Amino acid sequence: MKSVLSTKIGIVGGGQLGKMMIQEAKKMGFWVAILDPEPLCAAHSLVDEHIVAGLKDRDAIIKLSEICDIVTYEIEHINVDALFEVERAGKPVYPSPASLKVIQNKYTQKQTLLDKGVPVPEFLPVSSADDILAAGEKFGYPMMLKACLGGYDGRGNFLVKSAAQAKEGFDALGGATGPLMIEKFVDFTIEISVLACRGRDGQIAVYPVGQNNHKNEVLDETRVPAPISEKTRASAMDVARSVMEIFEGVGIFCVEMFVLKDETVSVNEIAPRPHNSGHYSIEGCVTSQFANHIRAVAGLPLGETRLVKPAVMRNILGEPGYDGPANPQGAENVLAIPGAALHVYGKHETRAKRKMGHITIVADTLEEAVTRGQQAFDGFKMLSTTGSD
Amino acid sequence: MKSVLSTKIGIVGGGQLGKMMIQEAKKMGFWVAILDPEPLCAAHSLVDEHIVAGLKDRDAIIKLSEICDIVTYEIEHINVDALFEVERAGKPVYPSPASLKVIQNKYTQKQTLLDKGVPVPEFLPVSSADDILAAGEKFGYPMMLKACLGGYDGRGNFLVKSAAQAKEGFDALGGATGPLMIEKFVDFTIEISVLACRGRDGQIAVYPVGQNNHKNEVLDETRVPAPISEKTRASAMDVARSVMEIFEGVGIFCVEMFVLKDETVSVNEIAPRPHNSGHYSIEGCVTSQFANHIRAVAGLPLGETRLVKPAVMRNILGEPGYDGPANPQGAENVLAIPGAALHVYGKHETRAKRKMGHITIVADTLEEAVTRGQQAFDGFKMLSTTGSD
Repeated sequence: MKSVLSTKIGIVGGGQLGKMMIQEAKKMGFWVAILDPEPLCAAHSLVDEHIVAGLKDRDAIIKLSEICDIVTYEIEHINVDALFEVERAGKPVYPSPASLKVIQNKYTQKQTLLDKGVPVPEFLPVSSADDILAAGEKFGYPMMLKACLGGYDGRGNFLVKSAAQAKEGFDALGGATGPLMIEKFVDFTIEISVLACRGRDGQIAVYPVGQNNHKNEVLDETRVPAPISEKTRASAMDVARSVMEIFEGVGIFCVEMFVLKDETVSVNEIAPRPHNSGHYSIEGCVTSQFANHIRAVAGLPLGETRLVKPAVMRNILGEPGYDGPANPQGAENVLAIPGAALHVYGKHETRAKRKMGHITIVADTLEEAVTRGQQAFDGFKMLSTTGSD
Repeated sequence: MKSVLSTKIGIVGGGQLGKMMIQEAKKMGFWVAILDPEPLCAAHSLVDEHIVAGLKDRDAIIKLSEICDIVTYEIEHINVDALFEVERAGKPVYPSPASLKVIQNKYTQKQTLLDKGVPVPEFLPVSSADDILAAGEKFGYPMMLKACLGGYDGRGNFLVKSAAQAKEGFDALGGATGPLMIEKFVDFTIEISVLACRGRDGQIAVYPVGQNNHKNEVLDETRVPAPISEKTRASAMDVARSVMEIFEGVGIFCVEMFVLKDETVSVNEIAPRPHNSGHYSIEGCVTSQFANHIRAVAGLPLGETRLVKPAVMRNILGEPGYDGPANPQGAENVLAIPGAALHVYGKHETRAKRKMGHITIVADTLEEAVTRGQQAFDGFKMLSTTGSD
């Protein structure tokens, strides 16, 4: 009988998410290939094959599928039509291209959730500045205007504060060039996210709820467990489970949610892949998001998602003013802190706000983890060899 | 200032210990090269450079040192003279060649420990079968005859049960070809081991005590924490700390000990490297033996060694009768067990009793971990594609 561990895994994308998937795949001895345009991408040194090509390159995706037994991905902005082709040719793609296609488009994603009764903020499609004004009549200001395709880390979002900004927002998001949608502004207390993983057999594993703090619209800190009531925790985990059932996702998904003043939750966004807010699970949980993703796509049973200790994740972004070859400083400060783990992705070039690494702190209490996380964060800087110093 | 994370790490040996070191090094973004004779060794797919050459090949070790900033190793049976050369050329080698030279030879290793007051079984050098008989007069039978150089996993050991076996043992270990020693047989209750790590600045971190169970002289199971009294635990950890001070080791060491009937400990053997009995630390401790080794040799602060949960490690050896290309069976059984992590080293060829992988179980109680470890062990078999099935 062929060993399940001989499954050749192909990953579209070789950034940090791909790298951390591969670290887990390699523990079990899997053969792994990636497709990534950067010859020295984060995952490069850990793979058996690296096809250097763009993430939307149809021929390259087909080639990847031909040298692998299954195909997965670490990023949603890829050529979904090529993935449908791969699937039609009989090669499994996880999560399925059908789910990816719906999720890739924020409008169809939200519409699907709404249809299935999952709580989401009110929203409307936008195809002109007038549609924004009409939405303003209905929802009131401010409202969040979003490009339906391709946005991340706040890119592709525009906060429309008043009717006077309707045209500006429409133009800023290139309204004429791609679909837009607008959402009622959600007056939330905190932002949370829940990872969930679904096996090929339908088994679902849901992770603890984390609180996310953003800085300049980029994730800065995740605290687990999130400081929410038991009722909110249960709803958030139920919503994550429903999302996995709705999309029949195989692999790890992340469901970002708002916690409203009445302690209910509302889904902000779904990512059909490992997520930055789930990095804490490497040190914080029995089985990490990356390990469970690999288990899921390989058709193996999922592992325990229990939190072992309170954990805090802090992102390391490229320091503004230091674009160039990466020159990280302060590892000795981070590692001197009890319970600290340092992840540096190995990207050769740093740029202002580029995700270059992260720090996880596990501690006996969340307060301790938060304090130590701040110390660690303050002690580390992602500079460059060509920077201003 | 040059980043400490830009330190290029060279590892002599690319087996599973090297692979697991590299997994940790890669988390922090280090560049890593290995020297290993097998083109498809366990670590091969994870490295930036692989020099394919023998572990005793002087020129290859020099070449490795030339492309790296520091040199370390995953195995002690290597060309120590070449390492001295590397050190003289100004390139740091951790642990130092001086310690390695003493530890490589079981006689000088034991003599050094004895001189420094560390408890060891009584021993004598052996250069003839008559020396064995003389030792028999002094220690009584049985006694353990050991090759001073190159043994591992019971290879290079011979249990001399009576005077009649003196000549047989001497010949079996090739007495005329290399130095031998003989030890008084230790009537122990259990075998334990303690990992300890020392930083370049002298900081020492000592791990919890594990109990080791061997099968056919090869490690089969490690249980942590070991079922010993607090007094024995404290002595074992003190002994491990002394060993690090005596050898001024930089990096991780493993100290294997016997627990005697009076609950004192006696050192069986030292390994100046990560050790099979420390694999539990990947999932069981805040910082694994491999992570701390990389921190130490890179000159970074050491991490917390605390046990997070009781842990059991079971070794996966090649199934007798199935020599050939590895075809592991039962991953789905192992991973269905709560708290189980599966490590398959990725060695292409399996042979009877070759170390091919391991399973770690973490659980709320040691009993639970032991039971689940047994289930996991029973559910997995390292077969081959050319085997008898």
